[in-house]
Amino acid sequence: MEWMDGGNVTSVPGFRAAGVACGLKKTGALDLALIASQTPCTATGVFTTNRVRAAPVVYDRQVLARNPGAIRAVVANSGCANACTGRQGQRDATEMARLVATRLGCRPESVLVMSTGMIGQPLDMVKVAAGVQAAVDQLSADGGHTAARAIMTTDTRPKTAAVRLSLGGRIVTIAGMAKGAGMIHPNLATMLCLIATDAAVTPPALDAALRRAVEQSFNCITVDGDTSTNDTVLLLANGLADNPPLEPGGPGFDTFCQALTAIAVNLARQIVRDGEGATRFVTIQMRGAASDADARQAAMAVARSNLVKTALFGMDPNWGRVLAAVGYSAARTVDPDRLGLWFGDLALVRDGQPLPADEARARAILEQPEVEITVDLGVGDRSATVWTCDLSYDYVRINAAYRT
Amino acid sequence: MEWMDGGNVTSVPGFRAAGVACGLKKTGALDLALIASQTPCTATGVFTTNRVRAAPVVYDRQVLARNPGAIRAVVANSGCANACTGRQGQRDATEMARLVATRLGCRPESVLVMSTGMIGQPLDMVKVAAGVQAAVDQLSADGGHTAARAIMTTDTRPKTAAVRLSLGGRIVTIAGMAKGAGMIHPNLATMLCLIATDAAVTPPALDAALRRAVEQSFNCITVDGDTSTNDTVLLLANGLADNPPLEPGGPGFDTFCQALTAIAVNLARQIVRDGEGATRFVTIQMRGAASDADARQAAMAVARSNLVKTALFGMDPNWGRVLAAVGYSAARTVDPDRLGLWFGDLALVRDGQPLPADEARARAILEQPEVEITVDLGVGDRSATVWTCDLSYDYVRINAAYRT
Repeated sequence: MEWMDGGNVTSVPGFRAAGVACGLKKTGALDLALIASQTPCTATGVFTTNRVRAAPVVYDRQVLARNPGAIRAVVANSGCANACTGRQGQRDATEMARLVATRLGCRPESVLVMSTGMIGQPLDMVKVAAGVQAAVDQLSADGGHTAARAIMTTDTRPKTAAVRLSLGGRIVTIAGMAKGAGMIHPNLATMLCLIATDAAVTPPALDAALRRAVEQSFNCITVDGDTSTNDTVLLLANGLADNPPLEPGGPGFDTFCQALTAIAVNLARQIVRDGEGATRFVTIQMRGAASDADARQAAMAVARSNLVKTALFGMDPNWGRVLAAVGYSAARTVDPDRLGLWFGDLALVRDGQPLPADEARARAILEQPEVEITVDLGVGDRSATVWTCDLSYDYVRINAAYRT
Repeated sequence: MEWMDGGNVTSVPGFRAAGVACGLKKTGALDLALIASQTPCTATGVFTTNRVRAAPVVYDRQVLARNPGAIRAVVANSGCANACTGRQGQRDATEMARLVATRLGCRPESVLVMSTGMIGQPLDMVKVAAGVQAAVDQLSADGGHTAARAIMTTDTRPKTAAVRLSLGGRIVTIAGMAKGAGMIHPNLATMLCLIATDAAVTPPALDAALRRAVEQSFNCITVDGDTSTNDTVLLLANGLADNPPLEPGGPGFDTFCQALTAIAVNLARQIVRDGEGATRFVTIQMRGAASDADARQAAMAVARSNLVKTALFGMDPNWGRVLAAVGYSAARTVDPDRLGLWFGDLALVRDGQPLPADEARARAILEQPEVEITVDLGVGDRSATVWTCDLSYDYVRINAAYRT
């Protein structure tokens, strides 16, 4: 597997993309992206577990249930989430797909829709129609980077990743783009992400591969503990690599899954690095757990704790907050007398007993832009890794003034 | 029931208190409180559900299990939580009780201990010993207010409340003090709180009354979603009012419960009003729920959401964040098409459909120091009320620099 420097969705043969500004964002920034495949794609998606689902999420789930084998395009807008918009929102999502289909000359049920931005505002469909027209006109084989910019909201930079690998004697490319900086606390899916590949993959293999990848990537990050109404991860495979179609458990499937997971992890980590107001990229390693679920729950509680996150912002080695979060986490088996704790490679607690503190060294570790916190629950052999960021003044500033 | 203006624990006949500075806080502020009863008290407590429990929590649970009928004093320090301190912490909590018992001439198992402050640091027992000596010397029948100040950490003001009522032909007083401003996310109990009464109450009645009161007060607040290692609510009844002892379900029991709950709610609301960095006091009313648990879970998810809390700080009527939090909450029955939402008396959503927005009025409501957000789940008749505060720059400042 080879990483493609600067690669993006149009690094995948057969995909074209565009990003345009149609006025949904008051700033005049890019706000509508279109990704189109020259041939029909097998497609699958993973969506938010929030019961309050945005209209595009409802729409895409219906389309993928009926028509998973012939997806031609994905249209995505930023600046408006089309969430909590009632029946009008459903009509708008459907119309957005129809506009693209008309321009591309395909069926409406071949088009998927994603939206991100402000919740509770209707989409301005006049602007969307103009944006779709412009985007279709500008579709190009090197438009992937511009498309990635057009789905940004509070993101400070676009997020793309691409790899190339050999499968069944053929060269296959997998590439993705994602957005997300706040309202990030995945629960089976998160944020907007589109991954494209030219691999030939059967529908069940595609679905299994995406679920496996999401579980190890977007479900391992948190910025602020808020699960979005719009979380969507789409995976499109156009089959142009002409490899023997991948089957679940068949030849090449694991190799494909590993590459897909690498792309998903790369994009997920980019989201945390660009977390709203983030000054630190933090890895929480939870080990010695009685179960995978315990490891995940304990790690997520630490990663979500406002007190841990503000201490990280303040470079304050206030390690008691980490153990407090483990203690109140949903992990079932926690024995305070078995806990171990490290900041980087500096041991702070062993068997629940605090070790003589080297405050200066602990502080020096927290001053680094990347921090690793390891907790050993001491009751088993399961582990989990979760990525998070700190909680800074800028997180508050960005979210207190999101609309103004 | 009559509220006693400026009342505190020493408003209860038979209780004396003191607050002293013994150097546990570097600032020289008061940091050790002692409350003593002239006669043995029936006592009960509710403690943190965090599995990482501070040494005083472990100690008090043992004492109350063995000796609930003859408690004479409570000693509480601020500046050091004696949590995550291992075996030394257990020895220190026991020694702290013994020091008080020796000075007061009672048995060590008649003394309860509370600690609050920094996690992971050992108690300085030389300072504690001097503080206990000074506090015993200064015990007085009007020391309740000073004791309340001595348990403060990031609190900006002491929290006390007192009521007087008639029970079985006798005048009974119930009074309490509490501390807490951060690490506030109760789970069966929270923060430090001591409530004293001169009512005669049987042990089972006392325990039932406290659990009922806590459920409707300290378990209905959140500041930052972090459940403390030290949460403790103690209730001491010395019986000096000489009323016929209250039995569960017997005459006067409900009246006592109502008064006790009023004290607990009053103190809980004081904690939220003084939440770290808080600029708004926010009431979340969740109604139309399918169950009490659903109502509580949905309300808590809204109250805990960093995005809702930062929007409140920014006076931004970004109501979609409220519905998003309801959607991802642990409430079982949530139907997006039945949701109703109000800021104050301004309706924003009905049956899941957004109503024409009066942005200026919504903003004016959020500019008030007290904000009420009501959500109707529309699927039942159960309800819950939760109190919270906003998330401001000052919360980050306070917690990024807690130790420095």
